Amino acid sequence: MLQKDKILISNNLNIIDNNLTFGGACVSNLAEKYGTPLYVMDENSIRNRCKEYVLALKEVLGENAMVLYASKACSFKKMYEIISEEGMGADVVSIGEIYTCLKAGFPLKNAFFHSNNKTDYDIEFAIDNGIGYFVADNEEELYAIEKIASKKGVKQNVLLRLTPGIDPHTFDAVSTGQVDSKFGSPIETGKAEEVTKIALSLNNVNLCGFHCHVGSQVFDTSVYNETIDIMLNYVKMLKIKYNFDTKVLDLGGGFGVRYDYTDPELKIYENVKKLATYVKNSCKKLEIALPFICLEPGRSIVADSGITVYTVGTIKKIDGYKNYVSVDGGMTDNPRFALYNAKYTVVPTNLSKNLDMTCSVVGRCCESGDIIQENVNLPSDIKRGDLIAVLTTGAYNYSMASNYNRICRPPVIMLKNGEPYVAVKRETLDDIIKNDI
Amino acid sequence: MLQKDKILISNNLNIIDNNLTFGGACVSNLAEKYGTPLYVMDENSIRNRCKEYVLALKEVLGENAMVLYASKACSFKKMYEIISEEGMGADVVSIGEIYTCLKAGFPLKNAFFHSNNKTDYDIEFAIDNGIGYFVADNEEELYAIEKIASKKGVKQNVLLRLTPGIDPHTFDAVSTGQVDSKFGSPIETGKAEEVTKIALSLNNVNLCGFHCHVGSQVFDTSVYNETIDIMLNYVKMLKIKYNFDTKVLDLGGGFGVRYDYTDPELKIYENVKKLATYVKNSCKKLEIALPFICLEPGRSIVADSGITVYTVGTIKKIDGYKNYVSVDGGMTDNPRFALYNAKYTVVPTNLSKNLDMTCSVVGRCCESGDIIQENVNLPSDIKRGDLIAVLTTGAYNYSMASNYNRICRPPVIMLKNGEPYVAVKRETLDDIIKNDI
Repeated sequence: MLQKDKILISNNLNIIDNNLTFGGACVSNLAEKYGTPLYVMDENSIRNRCKEYVLALKEVLGENAMVLYASKACSFKKMYEIISEEGMGADVVSIGEIYTCLKAGFPLKNAFFHSNNKTDYDIEFAIDNGIGYFVADNEEELYAIEKIASKKGVKQNVLLRLTPGIDPHTFDAVSTGQVDSKFGSPIETGKAEEVTKIALSLNNVNLCGFHCHVGSQVFDTSVYNETIDIMLNYVKMLKIKYNFDTKVLDLGGGFGVRYDYTDPELKIYENVKKLATYVKNSCKKLEIALPFICLEPGRSIVADSGITVYTVGTIKKIDGYKNYVSVDGGMTDNPRFALYNAKYTVVPTNLSKNLDMTCSVVGRCCESGDIIQENVNLPSDIKRGDLIAVLTTGAYNYSMASNYNRICRPPVIMLKNGEPYVAVKRETLDDIIKNDI
Repeated sequence: MLQKDKILISNNLNIIDNNLTFGGACVSNLAEKYGTPLYVMDENSIRNRCKEYVLALKEVLGENAMVLYASKACSFKKMYEIISEEGMGADVVSIGEIYTCLKAGFPLKNAFFHSNNKTDYDIEFAIDNGIGYFVADNEEELYAIEKIASKKGVKQNVLLRLTPGIDPHTFDAVSTGQVDSKFGSPIETGKAEEVTKIALSLNNVNLCGFHCHVGSQVFDTSVYNETIDIMLNYVKMLKIKYNFDTKVLDLGGGFGVRYDYTDPELKIYENVKKLATYVKNSCKKLEIALPFICLEPGRSIVADSGITVYTVGTIKKIDGYKNYVSVDGGMTDNPRFALYNAKYTVVPTNLSKNLDMTCSVVGRCCESGDIIQENVNLPSDIKRGDLIAVLTTGAYNYSMASNYNRICRPPVIMLKNGEPYVAVKRETLDDIIKNDI
């Protein structure tokens, strides 16, 4: 396999005159202009991924569906402007994400408030700001919503989070659909039905339907068919037993993305069409009304729409052991290797040299576990000041970043037709101490 | 063993009228006053730990030693005021920590700048602000310091970080003393000597001595004796071969702390005295001059000087599987279980009930891996609104906190003689979006 094919893992990437380009921009030029470490995201790519989801659902289900962006993958004001313009709603998991929506002018009626544990303050905040739907995790939360909605004299739209009992065979920390989970109420134990009955009994809760989410980084799309079967059978049971019409069915997210060339490419448009068709046909077969269908992609919208650019610092070749290449970022801007041993493709932005040295690319934090990636191929004459890019960092990098070691978080530079603009400013030293007394 | 003995793992803790107290304050009262999640730290405890280190070194070595606080464990302005008043210096690893020192009025001449990868900007910033010592990781950094110091016409004090080739048998991510490390230059491969010769050849570098750090959470203190042997033999070799006098020897940190009742209690004062005596005697035996000795405690100063208080939200009892108790924080304020499977002692603040339910205490993040601790014993009738405390969270909790899910970071409330004051303010929603364009 050619080196090039191992690097160009998404169509946002190219190599022109031996220089890596992303979203049509020369990566090293961006680093020169904005400094490093630097998150770069491509607005065109984000919009294209959104369009694939929206179009595929529309072609099968017409107006009877909505794509909700799973904010937690990457949340800042500009993201909500983009998804709103693309006709999408938002999956939010905290009042921080709700506040970001608000400040971006995003219509909160299209926001669905998830989370396994909402405080009374959260519930009040969300209702006061006109949240579209709560996705209630459990009965305690239902009672809390009922109490607060009643106080405010509103009838609040609510979905219930159910666990279909599916194990998507992905990494434990991102697998959420099985019975033994902190999320939702399991169908197979009877808990789901119990909670549904509670919801139906409440005056200020308008039960609209159900939500499930089987996990993240799912490549085996047959998992979704299983999930749909379980959820629609539940919907049918409720119709028969309680004459309850499920108006909204939110099937969550989880489509896998390519972190390196060994990962398959999951075609969004084709797979969403298949999934939507499966839902439609299944409803017909089960003789139930087709609910309004929601999907919640996050990672598959933003992951390969982003890269991180670093400047190389220390290079350490320890004879008989390993080679280390340190960069000016690390687990503070990308904790995913430290957390999950997550794989990434790491490349020099100047691709004129052979990648003839295997090394560990490590961060600058005072911690041995501060690793970006192991077994990376870089040129053996790489030196202090050279630039490297880590690909597919658009999801769960900016959003999970910390100030460990009191390191400032990088800015997010967005590209539009190859032209850069600042979406999130670089943190300053004064930001770091802003709350210190 | 009595339940009480499993809870009272440090002398900062007590149970009065069935209520957990910390640093002399009733924990539930603090939660009521400041809200949750809440970091609570006890200034008296921090000062007592500092005094143990300072006194033990002084008793053996007189004025020929200094304790440096390892800032990365927990860094905010107030910390530097405390350690300065206790006669300590600071180990800093970034310009963010240096800036925090500056703004706290901490004398930077007593600060030692570590990190495996300092950028030219970092080096310039540190020199401009009068940093006491660089702890140069490697030869590239030496050259960078030389170049910048020369430009500024200063002769910069420098220590070299060496790796003694010791494996302290602790967790990989916090083990740093072995040859195969991103940190420092190994002695056994000859690299250390090579880098020392370079340092001695530079005009604007004043080589003062050496630094090493074998790892973190070390209970087997014989590791330090081995380290001291290796370092002092290196010092002796340099004296004989190059007539170089090592003026400063910084032996790093790493003393273990009690995360639960099964951990031994490491007596700081006694162990530091032993360590200092071992250094003094070894120098005599090797017939070398005793260098100025530094130690760098971080965790052992602050870990059990801090707790985190949470409010319980969702309680989920999944028949045949597990029980889940969700709290209003999680991996955003304490990522150490997600990162290292770190253990913690978790207790209700009201201790009137039997702890008759085993459960997983989980956070509110939209992620299955968001766990505070597994196999926690809590009362089976624990309910939404109850308070729990996680003990020994003073180190690497506030410092590693993130805004994942756009969750605001908790404040740090400091206690002085049982009286609370704010050391770090609670983050606001406006803080979260402050850099969004």
